[in-house]
Amino acid sequence: MASIKPSVPKGTRDFSPTEMVKRNYIFDTIKSVFRKYGYQQIETPTMENLSTLTGKYGDEGDKLIFKVLNTNEQLEIFKATSLKNIIFPNGITEWDVEIERRIEEKRREALLKSTEKALRYDLTVPFARYVVQHQNEITFPFKRFQVQPVWRADRPQRGRYREFYQCDADVVGSDSLLNEAEFIMIYDEALDKLGLKDFSIKINNRKILSGVAQIIDKADSIIDLTVAIDKLDKIGLDGVIKELLERGFVQADIEKIKPVILLEGSNTEKLQSLREALAASEIGLKGCDEIETVFSYIEKCPLQTAKLELDITLARGLNYYTGAIFEVKTNEVAMGSIGGGGRYDDLTGMFGLKGLTGVGISFGADRIYDVLEELTLFPAAANQSTQVLICNFDKEGELYALPLLQKLRSRNINAELYPAGAKIKKQMEYANNKNIPYTVVIGSDEMQSGLLSFKNMTTGEQEKLAADEIVARLVE
Amino acid sequence: MASIKPSVPKGTRDFSPTEMVKRNYIFDTIKSVFRKYGYQQIETPTMENLSTLTGKYGDEGDKLIFKVLNTNEQLEIFKATSLKNIIFPNGITEWDVEIERRIEEKRREALLKSTEKALRYDLTVPFARYVVQHQNEITFPFKRFQVQPVWRADRPQRGRYREFYQCDADVVGSDSLLNEAEFIMIYDEALDKLGLKDFSIKINNRKILSGVAQIIDKADSIIDLTVAIDKLDKIGLDGVIKELLERGFVQADIEKIKPVILLEGSNTEKLQSLREALAASEIGLKGCDEIETVFSYIEKCPLQTAKLELDITLARGLNYYTGAIFEVKTNEVAMGSIGGGGRYDDLTGMFGLKGLTGVGISFGADRIYDVLEELTLFPAAANQSTQVLICNFDKEGELYALPLLQKLRSRNINAELYPAGAKIKKQMEYANNKNIPYTVVIGSDEMQSGLLSFKNMTTGEQEKLAADEIVARLVE
Repeated sequence: MASIKPSVPKGTRDFSPTEMVKRNYIFDTIKSVFRKYGYQQIETPTMENLSTLTGKYGDEGDKLIFKVLNTNEQLEIFKATSLKNIIFPNGITEWDVEIERRIEEKRREALLKSTEKALRYDLTVPFARYVVQHQNEITFPFKRFQVQPVWRADRPQRGRYREFYQCDADVVGSDSLLNEAEFIMIYDEALDKLGLKDFSIKINNRKILSGVAQIIDKADSIIDLTVAIDKLDKIGLDGVIKELLERGFVQADIEKIKPVILLEGSNTEKLQSLREALAASEIGLKGCDEIETVFSYIEKCPLQTAKLELDITLARGLNYYTGAIFEVKTNEVAMGSIGGGGRYDDLTGMFGLKGLTGVGISFGADRIYDVLEELTLFPAAANQSTQVLICNFDKEGELYALPLLQKLRSRNINAELYPAGAKIKKQMEYANNKNIPYTVVIGSDEMQSGLLSFKNMTTGEQEKLAADEIVARLVE
Repeated sequence: MASIKPSVPKGTRDFSPTEMVKRNYIFDTIKSVFRKYGYQQIETPTMENLSTLTGKYGDEGDKLIFKVLNTNEQLEIFKATSLKNIIFPNGITEWDVEIERRIEEKRREALLKSTEKALRYDLTVPFARYVVQHQNEITFPFKRFQVQPVWRADRPQRGRYREFYQCDADVVGSDSLLNEAEFIMIYDEALDKLGLKDFSIKINNRKILSGVAQIIDKADSIIDLTVAIDKLDKIGLDGVIKELLERGFVQADIEKIKPVILLEGSNTEKLQSLREALAASEIGLKGCDEIETVFSYIEKCPLQTAKLELDITLARGLNYYTGAIFEVKTNEVAMGSIGGGGRYDDLTGMFGLKGLTGVGISFGADRIYDVLEELTLFPAAANQSTQVLICNFDKEGELYALPLLQKLRSRNINAELYPAGAKIKKQMEYANNKNIPYTVVIGSDEMQSGLLSFKNMTTGEQEKLAADEIVARLVE
């Protein structure tokens, strides 16, 4: 058989034991916080019906959906363009436009028939599908979390993969702003638990952005407006003004918008200024009320580490969100957002269940991984790895070791017996490579005396101990 | 948009919160045992290169591989048969066999080019690919486990899905029979932990089956031989003899095979009889030696619950295994095998890395789920669900509740505050549906007195307690 070195498809990854321990640490931490706040886990299938996914992510998104062939059908694929050359190698005479049209039509039909399934593109649409499909079994408000991979036929590049995990929590069927406040607490608690010391949770509200568009009588230009404002960080006030003018806003608009963009001070001060600027906009004031309510909840439950910042330049997927908009950034490492979310009305409307409002957040697991790596915040994770390796030289040593091995395991200590009488150097290397903190060596002297060589692999310290003493030492 | 009730592709499943808690319980239990024995988790991508998978599962298996389209290419699918009718609606004149052949060839090329990826069919081949690809980073013997879904375009039926989880542990790079013994201990410990009281781990060895074929001078007929013997349970001795005769064995063969099939007594007695029957076969005796060595390890580490049974009728994927063969069955419920595995030489040979022997086992998670369900062995799993729901009637109650909520969570108690002033009945129903064991009701009386209504939802018992007393009660 072929001996070409095997590989994985581009944009996909293997996760080694070391990486898995770290990834599990992140996911387990976040999951435990989700559970603490009453969120329950679900899983949906890797493949969804193509009709469930298409039309939900815009034209660009649709192109990135991985389609799966129906393998049981007699699938026949053909490139019609080269077909011409095969059938009419000496030039086409009979070929005409009507034939082309009919071929195109048939081709579409065939494609549709042979690819009825596709890999999920995100967790949100499958969640909406789940809620509608199981609406009679679900207790609302339904608080669910989901940690599963998704697939996108994107051009792979540094930090962008074709297969990656999403880590989402959403609640549907409750318009209470307590949910928004709890998501802020979830971000705070989870990222604090992961060891981050300095990070910001930014909050905005779609209604405030609508209010800004309203006070300049340009409700229809909300996208242009927010796209420009969103760049304040990068291009500064002058840049934003220039862009606004290019996008058709006039000087009078800019005079009204300026105080909003340039909000300063504490969240309370910003809100106060906003209320003044948006006094003429009912929806704008509604947005201010909502933010204020969220802040009132947080006041009762002070955050542990996060800075909560009202940031009206925050827009993130504006067309999607109808209320709160969240984004999380670490201030310790240069990195894009490590989380985001917001409220959306009518998520399940796309599947025929109207009037169910929801709000959700997402953790960017790959980026969080990179942040923890850079700040060396991953714990030793000893609880997942082997604690002790028993080394031996022959069958006799092996059999001598087995009762000790069993005793260790019965005390819930992860323990291994090297499965062959290899050279001691090799066995020690094995322990080192697997980061096993202790070894026990059983040679003929040890078997005779009953005192085994117990070695701390970190300090190099060695002692002679009886089997029971070793167990006691490791149970501590 | 369409309001047809959405669904999942046939043969795939959603997992509800209740199912997820149970599935996590099974997987977490098995994983903790794998870790205790020094196995480390890896994950491989959902999609593998098609060339990695094809040719590894036989012709039948190849047909069941789900292929993924390259969506970035301008894929053109066409059914060549209907093409004829479109291009030549009045009957074909120019069409000839040579054109058909060329079309067929092009079609294959196109298919190959547009489907370079496929969903993994099992965890074993991706593991072999992983070992070869990462051989320079791996410490051998490499003990890995993997718990991920696999996909097969099988005809869905009761208990057979197109997407299902496999749960495998393998060690490669060690021919020590200690590994086989440890897998028996892993089965014993994991299934005991899951609460099974009566199950059997059956063991056989390919070399013994080879020995049986050898003593009747029919080494080439080993498949026919084992297929017949394998049915002893179902069709009895007479049935097996009939089948053997049909498959070309003669009466003299059967006289020699009979004592082997009809082995009785303890494992030791069976081994003794086998040695006598296989005295003339070197490989057969080697198989006996191997089994005996495995037993000698187990003697030093007595099993907790499992019955270990030498069963020479066990064949399972014979072509694959070269040494030990395992199968696990529960004796409490009628159910197929809930686990299996064995030793294979040269697993990585298919990817060009020769001479690496391995042995592995698999847990049948879906079947184990059904067994635990039938025997009602799932624990209350309270640790994963919300412990207490705080009910309230208005914004005032909500704000009053928040510090209590935060205190509970800071003590690691999973707690929820109902996110709206709904009717108390609705809030209690919510608690019941989510199996929340305790509720706290905060009304105006409670706020005034500081004594909150604390209710045990199981017994119905109610008490008036201060917030701190409630925390203390729940921390217990």
